[in-house]
Parts: sequence; C-alpha cells; structure tokens
Amino acid sequence: MEKSVEVVVIGAGIAGLVAARDLARGGAEVLVLEARDRVGGRLLNEELPGGAPIEVGGQWVGPGQDRIQALIDELGLKTFPTYDEGRHIAEIGTGRSEYLGRIPKLNPVALADFAQLQWRLDRLARRVPTTEPWRAERAAELDAQTFASWLQRAGHTDGGRSFLRVITEAVFSAEPEDLSALWAAFYINAAGGVDALINTRGGAQQDRIAGGSQTIAVRLAEELGDRVVLDAPVTDIDWDAAGVRVSAGALTVRARHAVVAVPPPLAARIRYSPGLPGDRDQLIQRMPMGRVIKFNVVYDEPFWRRAGLSGQANSDQRALGTVFDNTLPENSPGVLVGFFEGRHADIGSRLSAADRRARVLDDLAGYFGPQAREPIAFIERDWAEEEFSRGCYGAFTTPGALTRFGPALRAPVGPLHWAGTETATRWAGYMDGAAESGHRVAREILRFD
Amino acid sequence: MEKSVEVVVIGAGIAGLVAARDLARGGAEVLVLEARDRVGGRLLNEELPGGAPIEVGGQWVGPGQDRIQALIDELGLKTFPTYDEGRHIAEIGTGRSEYLGRIPKLNPVALADFAQLQWRLDRLARRVPTTEPWRAERAAELDAQTFASWLQRAGHTDGGRSFLRVITEAVFSAEPEDLSALWAAFYINAAGGVDALINTRGGAQQDRIAGGSQTIAVRLAEELGDRVVLDAPVTDIDWDAAGVRVSAGALTVRARHAVVAVPPPLAARIRYSPGLPGDRDQLIQRMPMGRVIKFNVVYDEPFWRRAGLSGQANSDQRALGTVFDNTLPENSPGVLVGFFEGRHADIGSRLSAADRRARVLDDLAGYFGPQAREPIAFIERDWAEEEFSRGCYGAFTTPGALTRFGPALRAPVGPLHWAGTETATRWAGYMDGAAESGHRVAREILRFD
Repeated sequence: MEKSVEVVVIGAGIAGLVAARDLARGGAEVLVLEARDRVGGRLLNEELPGGAPIEVGGQWVGPGQDRIQALIDELGLKTFPTYDEGRHIAEIGTGRSEYLGRIPKLNPVALADFAQLQWRLDRLARRVPTTEPWRAERAAELDAQTFASWLQRAGHTDGGRSFLRVITEAVFSAEPEDLSALWAAFYINAAGGVDALINTRGGAQQDRIAGGSQTIAVRLAEELGDRVVLDAPVTDIDWDAAGVRVSAGALTVRARHAVVAVPPPLAARIRYSPGLPGDRDQLIQRMPMGRVIKFNVVYDEPFWRRAGLSGQANSDQRALGTVFDNTLPENSPGVLVGFFEGRHADIGSRLSAADRRARVLDDLAGYFGPQAREPIAFIERDWAEEEFSRGCYGAFTTPGALTRFGPALRAPVGPLHWAGTETATRWAGYMDGAAESGHRVAREILRFD
Repeated sequence: MEKSVEVVVIGAGIAGLVAARDLARGGAEVLVLEARDRVGGRLLNEELPGGAPIEVGGQWVGPGQDRIQALIDELGLKTFPTYDEGRHIAEIGTGRSEYLGRIPKLNPVALADFAQLQWRLDRLARRVPTTEPWRAERAAELDAQTFASWLQRAGHTDGGRSFLRVITEAVFSAEPEDLSALWAAFYINAAGGVDALINTRGGAQQDRIAGGSQTIAVRLAEELGDRVVLDAPVTDIDWDAAGVRVSAGALTVRARHAVVAVPPPLAARIRYSPGLPGDRDQLIQRMPMGRVIKFNVVYDEPFWRRAGLSGQANSDQRALGTVFDNTLPENSPGVLVGFFEGRHADIGSRLSAADRRARVLDDLAGYFGPQAREPIAFIERDWAEEEFSRGCYGAFTTPGALTRFGPALRAPVGPLHWAGTETATRWAGYMDGAAESGHRVAREILRFD
C-alpha cells in the first residue's frame, strides 16, 4: 500500500502527536506512523485491580512545565496533586530518617556537603545555555568529564556524594559515571534547577494526570483520527532534497518532510538512504538510553498513611532507591510506586520475576514495615526490554558528544526533522520537553512550505 | 529466495570470513551475508596512478599479531616493512623537531612528562585483564572517568598531555574525552603496551601487506567461494532457541546459529525479534565508532626522502596529525598517507572536497615543504560516511559501559554469536583482533554442535 502526504511523522509519543496536530492545524496533510499497537511511547496506562488506570511509564507534571500544562488544559484533562502528607523516609549511609519537609535529619556533615554540591551544581547549570549547551563558557571542560568525575572533585564527603548519586539515578535513571557533566548541567538548567527536578510539591513530581498520563496521547490521537497508523514500524527512509519515501512493512508513505520523533538510539536504527551525515550519525551513536524498571505495588489500602508516612522514600542502600505513594484519590487500593534505576535495573533485569518481586517487597518492607510484603497486585515494566523504547527515562549524551556533535541534535537533514524530548531546550527528558519539540518541529516545517 | 544452512555469518570482514572458514573446515555448512558489493569491511584497496593497490582502510601489521600473521602466511601473502629511514618530524606546542630514532628533540620537560605518563599508563594497562577488563582491581574507578580526566590528573605539563592526545587520536581516532579510561587501559594492554601501539619498527605500524591488506579478505572469500553472498544487507534476525531466520532483502536464510560480525553500532541496527536482552542492547548503545578521514596523497616520487626525511610526522598543531610514507617498494610513485582523526575528522568532513584537499596539502607542505602542494593524485576516504562502517578505526566503550555491561560483549544470546575486532582479548581494534574473534566464535559454535 502506498500513501502520499505532505508530512509523515514517525512515532506517536507526545512529540510526534503534538507535531502532527500542529501541522494539521497549520493546513498540512499529515500521517503518523507508530510502531506499536498503541500510542504514547514512554507513556502507558495499565489497570489496577478494580480497573482504575495506573501509569507504568512517565506520569508526573509540575510547575514551569507550561507546554504540557497547556496541552492538558486544552484537552480538557485534569491534574491532581501527588500524595505528599506525612513523614518521608531517607536512608543515606547507615542512617535512617523520617522527616517532614524537604531536609532529612541525617549526618549534618553529609547534609552540608549536599547543600554545597546542590548550590554549585545550580550555579554551574545556570551558565549552560540550554539552546546551545556546547557554547557554554566551560563547555569543553565539562564535556571532557563524566558527572561522576565532577562529583568526585566537587564533593567533600562520601555521604554528600551518595546523596547526589541517588538523585542522579532518580532523575536520569543512569549513573553519574554514564553522563557527560555538560549534559547533566544542561539538563538541570533545562528544568530550572535541582529543586525543580527532585521536589514533589513545587517540583517535577507535583501533579498527576487524572485518567493516567497516556490519556494525553490517546486524546491527541483521537483528534488526529485516521491520520495515526498503528503497527507500522518504520524500517527505511529514502530521502533527497524533494522529500522522503518511508517504509513500514507493506506500507510506503511519500512525503515532502519527515519528522523523526523516536528516541535517538532508535532513530539510529532506521535505515536512511542515503545514510545520514557523519555528524548526525556519530551523535546518535553517543546518546544511549537510561535504564529503569518501574514497579507499582498494590495493597488493600495505603497502610503507611496510618503510620504517618507519606510513602516517599529514598535510599542509597536499596535497589528500590526511590518510592512514592501512587494511590489514586478516589476509591482506589493503596499503591506504592518504586524504581530500580541505572545499575539497580541492570541487576534487577537479571533476576527471575519471582526473585525480582521478592527483592522489591524486601525493600518496601524495609521502608514501611512487614505489611508491605502482602500486596494484592504487582505491576512491573522493564523499559530497556521494550523494542520500541530500549530504555527510559530518556537518552543522554556521553562525554565529548555535545561539544563535538551538539549542533546535529536539532539541525534538519534535507527533508528530515528531529523531534523528541531529548531535543528540547526546556524540560528535556520530560513530557513537557516532548511537547516543545513537537511544536518546534511543526514550526520548522510550516515555515519552509 | 530461501536458503538453509547450519551457520549464517553476517559481515564479510576478517572476523566473519575467518569464522566462516573455520566453521567450514570444522564441517559446518555456512553462508556469509555481506551488505556491500565487496568483502573486507574496514579493509579496502584502491588504485594508485599506474594501477598498484593502495589501502584506504586498515593497512598495517606488526610483531605480536600472531593470528593475522599466521593467516597471511597461510594465504601465501607477503609483508614488507613500512618505510622507516631518515628523520621523523614532530611538532608539539610551538616546537618542531626533526629526529632519528624514537624520541623527538622537544621541550625536555614535556618529554619527561610524556615518559612518566607512558610509564604510568603501561603499568595501569598491565593490571587490566583483557579477557574481563571489568574485573580489574580499579575497574570501577577507571570506568567512572574519561581518559581525558585520567590524563588531566596524571599529566604534569600541557606538552606531555598534548603528546598523549596526539597518540590517542592516532590510536583510537577518538579524543581522550570520548573514551572510558578503563577501555583505554584495556586496549593498551590488549596490544602489549603503548610502544607496541605507536611504534613503526617493533610496533603496530611495522609491516604492510603486499597487494594491499584487503587481499586477505579477498583470498579468504575465494576459498569460501559461493558461500559468500554480496549485496545482502541483513535487516532482520528472527531467533529462538532452535535457530535463526535472517532477512537480507529478497534473501532469507535459516540456520541453527548466526555470527554477527559487524561493528557494534551496526549490530544494534539490525532488528532482532525477539529484541536483544537489555544488557546486550544497552552495551551496544554505548559503543560508538571512532572517526577518521584517511588521505593517500600521491607524488611523482617520494621527494621527502631526498631531504633525509622518513615521511613520518606528528603534530598537535595540524589537522593532519599523523603522516607516514606509504610508497610501495617497487615502481611506485611517492605516497604520503595522513589522517584527520577524532575532532579533526569532524571539522574536515564539514569542508567541501576542495577545501579539505587544500587543508591537507597545507599541512603536508608545512611538514615537508612546498613540493607537497603538487600531488599527482589525491585519494580520500571518510569512514564515518560509510553506511556499512559508520566510523573507524573501531568502536570503544563510553564511561560506565564496561563495568555495567561488559560481560554482554561476547556472551552468546541463544543462537546469536558476536564477533568483530572489538570483542577480541588481544589487539582489539586491529586485524589481528578480528581474526581472533573469528576463530573464537567458530570454536564457540563447533563445541555446541
């Protein structure tokens, strides 16, 4: 089967769907090809016992994320606050603290070190322009080192560094060793600072979307109607100055422009003919995905609340390094959501399902007591195993890549345009960045036509 | 068209061809699928004016490379020594030295620093087991940093560090910023030390292969006859415990085993069904290729020899950082071979062909005088632009990758076996390592059957 449109969009995550909607509204004939049998990409709803939707992918939105908030409003969706009452748990080193507010009561020397690290990191990040991080004053120096090297030198105590490692895992689902320090600084600045990334109230975990985050993609796709084609994994793009011919199994689509709205390592796996310019190809060879296994563990009721606990927990001692209360506001069983991130996901993915479950329940019992061992449901998702994501939360650049190949991140190649949250200048790696990239790429194309 | 064999080999470079030959000799029915219209992979002969073969890809062999030497002998090929008479040129910082032997007469402080850096590097490398570098005593510490970070701390002078940067570019066609320090140490140990990597006489550039290095692949392919299929780019591998079904355009091959003998980033671009396990996929997301543009610049005669120069030159000031005399021993015009490596290849690839040529000739004139501006032929190859290599000389691991995912480098996945020089334990990145990997993977399969 062969179709002809003005713009073909590859990938029906938020980036691709927003691009397609803007293009359609701008008068362009558009077709979205999605590899999976569903839309949403790294957003996916599953069901709790009783049928309420729960996210196994990205789920939170927060203040400053104006583009995703505008989209939520426009689609008539509602948000509700993440449960944030009661004492949080932090385990760093051998200490355990149950605390109210933002600062765990742990080793004051480690806390002071963490505070100075955060201050230095925020200052560093502010000096990295998010449109062109490779032009930062210290770009070469920062991109020459891993974030772990930066942390090793900037930190004064093992406790302070360990705190920041837990945060790195929670934010990037990668280890400080994996990331270019320049990418880390860029990413922090794109969110507006460390607090914006890590906070619940006032930060990136503040709110949730009623009906589950995938609903955003589902609504966008409904609006696009039969312009979204599922089960159409794109394998080949033939292109020249005049346009593209895109192959997805038996379907061939000709178009003047293509929007590639899939994660960078997957964009690399499409066969381009002619091949991509060296700069672009080298860049996407150096943008691996983070790795995370997400667990929603379901209980008859949110029993931890009765003990005055918020359900929020962090640890540098446990594989399940980050936990939140993921209970829905009404008529819902209790839900704890936790993550194996970075190296913890490596180890977790090598376990049998039964051993992995036992490990998660051990960690939850360690945080919240023995009741945590008796869930009524256990919902897990290992994103590195997903053929059409191959990791989460997002891609990052390895050292040297941004300064050598950064300009290839968004620069169109003939009729090929690059979207996806990793190309955003604000909230890169988040739904909000995905929306930005969709809007940007639509403007890029509408301006040219 | 559908074929059925015991083992299908993907890629007709040295790794794939050696594997296929060993398997055929071991009694297995084997078929090699090669994407290009030629064999050899990163080895490729072109022609000098007059018709003699000259390599635009890998070309040198040296002592200690026993597997490739055995293959050369067995195939009845001959080697001849790289031209190594006369004074070499080195430019580091503002100094220029024309020198005999191994040590340029430059700033003695920088030289002393380089000597201590080499000594430390060799000692470090010896402590990294090449079979399992991730088990080195200091593996975590080394893999947490870039080679640039190691160099920054271990070096005492800019001159000493700059020397080692030139060497890094020449050896890895990457920048110290790009590489995990653990990978750098592994690679050095796999070659037997820094001297073995950088020397002409006594090192990896000692000898050349009569008829051009690609002849090794051509002879192997001749022996395999119609078991080598050209123009068959593999796009899909369906696999289960019982075997594979490999698709290459209209050709489908069923087999009990598949040997994937293409560079890691290209192995990642094959569509596996089911998808590869997360560890393997994450590893090959973190093994980008180096980048090099190779130039053979041809003159009526090797004019530099009359001035007592060897044609060997290195500089930290010029894009063409490494040059050798590539003249053939008999009835040949004079040939200088030079390289834009790493960041120099980035810049070079963005120039027009005319500007790139002018830049190369400027650098050659700077080294060897104005006669270098009058070549009779100019032969260039940009390996990052090649669809079926996407870089050279080889792949490397970015920080964090070896310690997190190293065991996935060679571990078979069901019927899938991994070959290629990057999987070798000696001379990884060289023809010799490619041969090792071919032998190893054939043993892996013959043992199982």
